[in-house]
Amino acid sequence: MSRANSRQMKLGAFLMAGGHHIGAWRHPDAVAEAGVDIDHFIGLAQMAEAAKLDMIFVEDAAAIRERNVNIASQAARSTGFEPLSLLAALAVNTSHIGLVATASTTYNDPYGLARTFASIDQLSGGRAGWNLVTSASELEAENFVSSGLRPHAQRYERAEEFAAAATAVWDSVDAGAYVVDGNVYVDPGKLHPVDHRGTHFTAAGLLDSPRSQQGRPVMVQAGASDAGKNLAARTADVVFTAAQTLEEGQEYYADLKARMPSFDREPDDLKILPGVSPIVGRTESEARAKYDALQELIPDEVGVALLASYLSVKDLSQYPLEGPLPEMPQTDGIQSRQQLIIDMGRRENLSIRQLARHFAGARGHWQLIGTPAQIADELEERFYAKAADGFNIMGALFPAGLEDFIILVIPELRRRGLFREEYEGRTLRENLGTRIPARGA
Amino acid sequence: MSRANSRQMKLGAFLMAGGHHIGAWRHPDAVAEAGVDIDHFIGLAQMAEAAKLDMIFVEDAAAIRERNVNIASQAARSTGFEPLSLLAALAVNTSHIGLVATASTTYNDPYGLARTFASIDQLSGGRAGWNLVTSASELEAENFVSSGLRPHAQRYERAEEFAAAATAVWDSVDAGAYVVDGNVYVDPGKLHPVDHRGTHFTAAGLLDSPRSQQGRPVMVQAGASDAGKNLAARTADVVFTAAQTLEEGQEYYADLKARMPSFDREPDDLKILPGVSPIVGRTESEARAKYDALQELIPDEVGVALLASYLSVKDLSQYPLEGPLPEMPQTDGIQSRQQLIIDMGRRENLSIRQLARHFAGARGHWQLIGTPAQIADELEERFYAKAADGFNIMGALFPAGLEDFIILVIPELRRRGLFREEYEGRTLRENLGTRIPARGA
Repeated sequence: MSRANSRQMKLGAFLMAGGHHIGAWRHPDAVAEAGVDIDHFIGLAQMAEAAKLDMIFVEDAAAIRERNVNIASQAARSTGFEPLSLLAALAVNTSHIGLVATASTTYNDPYGLARTFASIDQLSGGRAGWNLVTSASELEAENFVSSGLRPHAQRYERAEEFAAAATAVWDSVDAGAYVVDGNVYVDPGKLHPVDHRGTHFTAAGLLDSPRSQQGRPVMVQAGASDAGKNLAARTADVVFTAAQTLEEGQEYYADLKARMPSFDREPDDLKILPGVSPIVGRTESEARAKYDALQELIPDEVGVALLASYLSVKDLSQYPLEGPLPEMPQTDGIQSRQQLIIDMGRRENLSIRQLARHFAGARGHWQLIGTPAQIADELEERFYAKAADGFNIMGALFPAGLEDFIILVIPELRRRGLFREEYEGRTLRENLGTRIPARGA
Repeated sequence: MSRANSRQMKLGAFLMAGGHHIGAWRHPDAVAEAGVDIDHFIGLAQMAEAAKLDMIFVEDAAAIRERNVNIASQAARSTGFEPLSLLAALAVNTSHIGLVATASTTYNDPYGLARTFASIDQLSGGRAGWNLVTSASELEAENFVSSGLRPHAQRYERAEEFAAAATAVWDSVDAGAYVVDGNVYVDPGKLHPVDHRGTHFTAAGLLDSPRSQQGRPVMVQAGASDAGKNLAARTADVVFTAAQTLEEGQEYYADLKARMPSFDREPDDLKILPGVSPIVGRTESEARAKYDALQELIPDEVGVALLASYLSVKDLSQYPLEGPLPEMPQTDGIQSRQQLIIDMGRRENLSIRQLARHFAGARGHWQLIGTPAQIADELEERFYAKAADGFNIMGALFPAGLEDFIILVIPELRRRGLFREEYEGRTLRENLGTRIPARGA
């Protein structure tokens, strides 16, 4: 127990409408139109907070998720709240849990986005986090620019400048700058106007709110390319990642943490949280039955279309379902996810249908099916083996999937000293234990 | 009473941190750091809702409001929530009142902004409104573009295209498109992908949420230039305006409503709400004392700096305080407000100090000081004289200024049949009585 006391898991609840499983909306326990049901989201966030989870996490794309509306519809991920307005609504219905949303550096401006996250930080008392993405979807590009999706390298170059400018905006106001004592409103010595004039952006003013209670909103990233890992090593407090195997997890973990010293950061200032989709049963067969019931809800055409979208290719329907993936050209989409799927197909010798069904369940993430002890064993192994600092829990079906994890697995993790009994603080940064960056860092 | 029954006032509560009066934050009843106190805003919104007001309204600039931080600080308007996240937080704490926020067509993209307002519409059950502005402040421009503030005509050209694209995004999904019955998720015949490829923007997809419960978010505008009035006549449900005199109000009202038929719209589909700052007392002298107490809280340098900012000039401090305004060149700032100030100075022969103190109180809007009956008389006169369809109430100090209006003036308006006893519906559009635009209109 002593080693557990010195290092505990950080846990996020990755929320997604009716569930991460692609067939979740067809399940008898599904919440109808979960994506735009705010009471559903408030219930999930409050449940996660009662269990002392570090954060809720929401993904985003500024577009529907699939060009073929018949399939998009089945994917059931094409309607939802815009994440920052969702976070604001959750902020006033929670008190301790971190609130992390995805936002794009390609379709926003740093001043505008930095002030919105600062606003959510004020609304929540220092619990906001920004999952920085560069947006790899063509459907998003079509909603914004006539020239289509920008190349990977160009998106990351813009993201680097975006992160620097946004950080400078947050750092333009020191703690205690706003005095507001009836005579003095502000201490001008505590204001440091930004003077960012870069290739992509200009930002030359002051943040229009007080400094965040947690210093800066927490920075989350998921980049797995070389450019993505460098950006994360330099700027991220949390990295959300996908790893199918222990070895993949260890390799990624070691690589990313090793990059940090060259950016003058301690490895412990960045928490690596792989995604995991746990299907929990009181017995192994109960867990397996839950999983099978979900897998039966995936029509082949939906699974294959989703797989094509993960691979950033237009269509896979011309290939035999029982055959292997064809050779894939590298695209400008999310390269790490393409590679993960291709690797898994080869490693486990899976057909297109098998790959499609697998990825339709956990969306490219680690799938665990078992009893609370079995699942805790697996998580504990990866935690101590330095493949993870914690996990982003992806319920297959909401609310049941999150509820099962909280009721059945969290107590098991606590018995092992692997997870907190109480929040350490009120801000997300305090609970994560990542240090408030100095101004200008 | 019979004519009142057929037409009643629409009333908004224009919220602003500690109050619209520039000295509000120095007042003994001020709420410290009101701009980032969400409980303060929730209290105001719930108070306005209990009184059955049509909407709360918040302004915006994506920047601090004054270059000189010593004066900005005194202005006490430079810190606050970003308006859309504020609206989202208020949406889940109210049930009937409309929620209107200002957002810029110059520093946003139509798909991104349309989906955020659609999200707030879903969060609130059809109560969102967008106050479209083109952003006239140089301080905002410096946070976004290296080339500085764009000329007035260019901003309006972009705004026209922005409004058309955003409307098309909202109209891309019909009511009832998302079936979600366990077998069918969406009816593809009810989806109408946008195909906007214009000068400034591309938007070529579908809105990622169901159609708004009120058809589309309500469109609010405040433009007073010729270009601004045409945009409003074509697209606005509500126009927020400033009129010092009855005649100014009538002239604006007649002009704007006369422009509507050429856009195939009925005059009653647009509600004109001038701003008014009422200082209410149970007696005239009590009201006057409240006003004087606020006016004493305006240091000359603050009032003059604010006046300069309203006139979009850098500085007025080189002119004698007791003398008249100098001749002003036309700028690329808000032309209507410049003219209103210049006209008032000439009409009432006011010195720079007098103008500064006047505008520091009601920020260019109509100032009323009196008993509930006196204030109701004035509002009633302008309402029946076709200078207004209602008013946007600008409390000088919050919460007291709004509370006084609600407790003292609203009952008087109700006695006269001028204001509702109960909400007509659950959506903002139902309560305003403006028709749901047909798709493509």
